[in-house]
This record gives sequence, C-alpha cells and structure tokens, in this order.
Amino acid sequence: MSKIITINRQFGSGGRELGKRLAAELGIAYYDNEIITQIAGRSGLAEEYVNSIVERKPIVYYPITIGRTFLAHTPQPLDFNTQIYTEQHNIIKELAAKSDCVIIGRCADYILRDLKPFRIFVYADMPSRMERCRAKAPSDEKALTDKQLARYIDDIDNERSDYYKFFTGQKWLDAEHYDLMINTSGMSIKEFAPALANMIRIKK
Amino acid sequence: MSKIITINRQFGSGGRELGKRLAAELGIAYYDNEIITQIAGRSGLAEEYVNSIVERKPIVYYPITIGRTFLAHTPQPLDFNTQIYTEQHNIIKELAAKSDCVIIGRCADYILRDLKPFRIFVYADMPSRMERCRAKAPSDEKALTDKQLARYIDDIDNERSDYYKFFTGQKWLDAEHYDLMINTSGMSIKEFAPALANMIRIKK
Repeated sequence: MSKIITINRQFGSGGRELGKRLAAELGIAYYDNEIITQIAGRSGLAEEYVNSIVERKPIVYYPITIGRTFLAHTPQPLDFNTQIYTEQHNIIKELAAKSDCVIIGRCADYILRDLKPFRIFVYADMPSRMERCRAKAPSDEKALTDKQLARYIDDIDNERSDYYKFFTGQKWLDAEHYDLMINTSGMSIKEFAPALANMIRIKK
Repeated sequence: MSKIITINRQFGSGGRELGKRLAAELGIAYYDNEIITQIAGRSGLAEEYVNSIVERKPIVYYPITIGRTFLAHTPQPLDFNTQIYTEQHNIIKELAAKSDCVIIGRCADYILRDLKPFRIFVYADMPSRMERCRAKAPSDEKALTDKQLARYIDDIDNERSDYYKFFTGQKWLDAEHYDLMINTSGMSIKEFAPALANMIRIKK
C-alpha cells in the first residue's frame, strides 16, 4: 500500500524536522521548499514572491472602480494566489503519483484526500516553540523580545490557519482531519521519529 | 521517571482497549470501572447511581423556594455530583501516588496535571465508532438503527465533553491539553499498542 504522509504544523513545533526524519526512516521522498521552486519555475513568478503568498490567506481587493472594463485586464493579487494554488495543487498531485513521500503543509492532506494519506499535525506549547525558533532563527528574529517572538509565531500560524480554511473549507486544528496529532513539547524528535515510523508502518 | 498515562476517548473509539493493551505492554496498572466501585464504597451511594453521574455534566436545579431554609437540609443533585467528583479526585490522586498506571477518562489528565502524565485522546470517525459499538454492545443497543446509534454516540460524547468542561474549565477536544491524539479509524489497536508503548517509553 502507498505511503503518503502529510504534515501540517505549528510554526516552531519541529514539524519539518519530524518530516525529514520520518522520510529517512521510511526511505521515501521529502517535499517542502522544492514545491515552491517548482511553482516559481512553472508560473514565471519569482520564488521569493511565491513563498510570500503560499500558506497565506489570499487578500481580496475589491476594485473600487467596478464597471470600468480595463480593470479586467490588470492581474489582481487574487489571480496570482489562485494561479499559485492551482500550480501547487498540480505539483503535489504529480509528486504523490510519482512515489511515496512526506509533504509538509500546503493543504496536501486535503489535495491528496483520495489517496488516503497518513495525516499528521505537529504542535507544541509556546515556550517550546519559542525555544526552537531561537535555536534555529536567523539573527534578525533572534533580536525579538519574547513577547514579539510569541506574537510573530501566532501571526504565522493564523496565516496558515486562514490559508487552510480558505482553500479547503476545513478548520486547521480539527482533530477529525488528522490521523495523529503530536505535541512535541519537551520531546526529542530524533528519538521519537523511529518509533513513529514503526507506528505508521503498522497503520498503513 | 513515573509513567502515568491518562486516556480521554470518544465513545466507541477503542480508548479502553488501547488503555488496557498499553498497561499490559508497559507492565503498569489499569484503572477504569475500579474507580466507580471505590467511589460507591466510600460515598455509600449505589454503584449504578455513581456510574450514571460520573462523566455527565451536573444538572443544577435552582430551588424555586429560595429563602425557605429547610431546603438547605435536603441534598440536591448537585451535592451528590460534587461529592462524587471530590471522591473521584481523591481516589485518582491516591491511585497515581501508589504506582504507575493508565487511567481512563474522569478528568484524570487535569486532576493529575502536577505529575505531568502522558495525556492521550482517542477518537475515530462515526462509521468506525458505530462498527465498534455494534460489535461490543449489549443486545438492546444492537437493536438501534444507524441514525439512532449515531445520535446515542454523540449524546454520550456531549455529556463527557460537558462534564470535562464543568470540572476543568477546559475544552475536551483542545489539542493543547494532550500529548497525543490518535484517530483509530480502520486501525488494529492490537497491532498499534506495542508501537505506541515504545513511543511513550521514549517520550517520558
């Protein structure tokens, strides 16, 4: 049976580390930023721009001058969003069809629902997420106060949650959309990943 | 380090089976209906009556005749509820102090929070829960139509959720109160329990 594993994750919870380790344990592909690179390649949009849009809720600007037809020819932000989501949708389907894999975020759990992926949600309490961020963050994020960092983490998660809701109609944190929800607070992901891989081998 | 495992579970999701198997794998005690028996013994209330109250939200009857002091001497349903919750609270604390154990439901995750138990929530989709109920149910439950059974399951879970909210102030289904949330739909709990036991050995 195929092994497609999707991982949604709170920012700073170690979802990517868990995903990479799971993929290594199970000997399957791992996709994260590779998807962004491919979208940029296909859409002709800059990688940085794609990255700034993906997993953020589209902002819909209502044209003030509705009825002035020349506006129809100017690409609006929502067009780019939809274009990127469509490319992402196609790329994720192609990757999953090609081989077993772990895919991080990007509504892959919803896009691939017909393949019955093993759907994981990774989360952690705020102190653990802050600690992980500080250990891994670029220097400008390190300069944030605790309060600013907590706010920054919450903002990113709210964007992910809104994005997920917008494109799937589902709530990001609803247990019913997942097979397993894992709280990584105080956990060694390195030690935990092999045990989880065993569990997934059994469940599939 | 101590191994206290608490399991909250949707009705029909296999939480008890998982709990029993985990306790066997880890070689620790398992507490479920034993708690009811002890409450009954200590409170002098019938076991059946205790069972009908535990994990149901207390119903508060407001006396219509407030101010008539003789009412203060008549035990009200809320008194029994509080008495039972208090006994339960004490018994769960005593059991956890005595030895490592698995405790099913009864707000044990909240009551024992200072001991940092490993907190599991077990759930499943409705078809899986109905199948499990039909396989294990007494004959009168077997006579229910699918619609009636789904309603019955939802009613029990609503009661558990209300009870939990009433005594802990927390939402039953909030991921942040758990270390692991497991969807048992289509899963062999017998095969899964040893892998989970390994994971818990690592995390503690």
